[in-house]
Amino acid sequence: MKRRLLILAEGKFSPLKSKTANGAIVYLRDEVAAVIDSTKAGMTAQDVLGYGGDIPVVKDLQEGLAHKPTHLLIGIAPTGGRLPVEWRQVICRALEHGLHVLSGLHTILSEDPEFAGLAQKHGATITDYRKIPPESEVVSKGSWRTRKAKTILTVGSDCNIGKMTTILQVHRELVSRGVKADFVATGQTGMMIRGRGIAVDSIISDYIAGCIEREIDQSESEGYEFILVEGQGALTHMGYSGVTLGLLHGTMPDAMILCHQPTRLKDDYGLPIPPLDKLILLHEDLVRFFKETKVLGIGLNSVGLTDQESAEAAARIERETGLPAVDTIRFGAGKLVDAILEYSAVPVRR
Amino acid sequence: MKRRLLILAEGKFSPLKSKTANGAIVYLRDEVAAVIDSTKAGMTAQDVLGYGGDIPVVKDLQEGLAHKPTHLLIGIAPTGGRLPVEWRQVICRALEHGLHVLSGLHTILSEDPEFAGLAQKHGATITDYRKIPPESEVVSKGSWRTRKAKTILTVGSDCNIGKMTTILQVHRELVSRGVKADFVATGQTGMMIRGRGIAVDSIISDYIAGCIEREIDQSESEGYEFILVEGQGALTHMGYSGVTLGLLHGTMPDAMILCHQPTRLKDDYGLPIPPLDKLILLHEDLVRFFKETKVLGIGLNSVGLTDQESAEAAARIERETGLPAVDTIRFGAGKLVDAILEYSAVPVRR
Repeated sequence: MKRRLLILAEGKFSPLKSKTANGAIVYLRDEVAAVIDSTKAGMTAQDVLGYGGDIPVVKDLQEGLAHKPTHLLIGIAPTGGRLPVEWRQVICRALEHGLHVLSGLHTILSEDPEFAGLAQKHGATITDYRKIPPESEVVSKGSWRTRKAKTILTVGSDCNIGKMTTILQVHRELVSRGVKADFVATGQTGMMIRGRGIAVDSIISDYIAGCIEREIDQSESEGYEFILVEGQGALTHMGYSGVTLGLLHGTMPDAMILCHQPTRLKDDYGLPIPPLDKLILLHEDLVRFFKETKVLGIGLNSVGLTDQESAEAAARIERETGLPAVDTIRFGAGKLVDAILEYSAVPVRR
Repeated sequence: MKRRLLILAEGKFSPLKSKTANGAIVYLRDEVAAVIDSTKAGMTAQDVLGYGGDIPVVKDLQEGLAHKPTHLLIGIAPTGGRLPVEWRQVICRALEHGLHVLSGLHTILSEDPEFAGLAQKHGATITDYRKIPPESEVVSKGSWRTRKAKTILTVGSDCNIGKMTTILQVHRELVSRGVKADFVATGQTGMMIRGRGIAVDSIISDYIAGCIEREIDQSESEGYEFILVEGQGALTHMGYSGVTLGLLHGTMPDAMILCHQPTRLKDDYGLPIPPLDKLILLHEDLVRFFKETKVLGIGLNSVGLTDQESAEAAARIERETGLPAVDTIRFGAGKLVDAILEYSAVPVRR
């Protein structure tokens, strides 16, 4: 039976606050039945996000059940990743109706006695994408030194800025051009889409690089020529920079795409977003201690801008950085993929 | 009753392979009863390490018991931190003799049914310094923005190169000059010495910065004026760089001491140690996205060199970097503390 996802995003459904919900709406659109958010009930996903078509927003679980869901998907990934207390009752009721629960929260729902008991009683399953998998105590071996596949990583000028979206758009475009390309998911939303991956922010810090390396090794062993790795966090975000550097060195990317939102001036600490030229150098320098690499382009998140404003911002950034820049959701990832293929045709200096 | 530590370092007791043992021998010397390593039995710590005086090396647990230990201290912290299988029997026998066990391994000994059962039966305790403490799911708040105390962090050109030793020597020297200085332990050996701290490499990666910030906040709340944070890993060590950057941004140090071993040319992957000038810039740049900072000096690990060779290496590095350089174990941390106090007298630009 096909999954039908009811997404819980109560009070949070919006372009920026419901990252997991929004990723599911873009990349699992055929599976999404409805979104719960009483503050936007009666609207569609399109109304709220500017994409997602006629997926309805409903006021509560009861109304959502009318759309015959099979799964409740927790649609947020808040700072720190804990379960909002007020969502507990909704999850309990969903389990009582036999809905399977998909969660990317740090709070491991399947280990909660009340949730686990209800799931067992009603024949439902609970999937925690951030549960640390067994055998995740692996230290990086440095397999990039003998890797044949090209690895591309998205990095960002901030957290929650479009790194998953951009790499998925690049992946889609590469595949459409007949390239054997894989997508390596590193966060809960990406894992829901790909069906596998590793939530790097849940790994014990000694093993970040080792765990992502193992995912890439697996993709390579399956014959993929391009391995597109979803970035996490930002090197200049003081809360999560450790995750980002572990991911950068675990990937040792042949090339990077820098994701950026032209209208975002400050991060969630109120600290200014650094200039793009400095960020490009920083990311390249940190890999060049090991191997040659290059930031090949800028993936824009132009939420709140018109198409014309987005194109103007891209043109300005192209002049400033000398790199192709584009909002891949609006205009496709063609420009970025052109740059990737052109760069990759040249033998990469190790 | 005073602790008497029997250190288990079978087959590993040496200047570089038994980091935890060696830290205990330097900083808990009065508590160390003996070291177990059959390959060096009959020697003293001084013979093996060049320090540690007449602490005896014994061939097995049985011989160690003659020195009336109260605790068995696991004296290694291997890559990945797992328990060597051949040590299991020794730990079991020690517990049967009622010895308390102190461990900094990633393998949590107190959760092992056999160890836990023996401990309970024989009235022994098991302390796992790397066990993730409850309530360690904290995201960095950025409390450096209002911090009054000066924070100093050791960083390194590689892992296992002297970051704990150097910061402890600096701490000792600052205290001897009447400065109210605290030592914040971030690894298992430091925690054994300080009696508190956080093993950052055991923290879930999203919380590295938050956990270290909380330790610093606690020291500041106790009135310390200088907070000396033990560094971990290296930004240019591909296995553990994520830990290092999380620690760097969790600390947001006012100043850093770069630790280096002049005779070490390659890391444990066989990759070259980068030039010091590049490392200094990299560390400063990564903090300067947020605040002013400076690498103030170089702490040398001159194992294998004579005193004269060590001094010559220091002089060469001083010429190359323009910074004071010294092996603080051999020659004291006076030079580095002079630089710290001189720098700190100038109001720090935020």
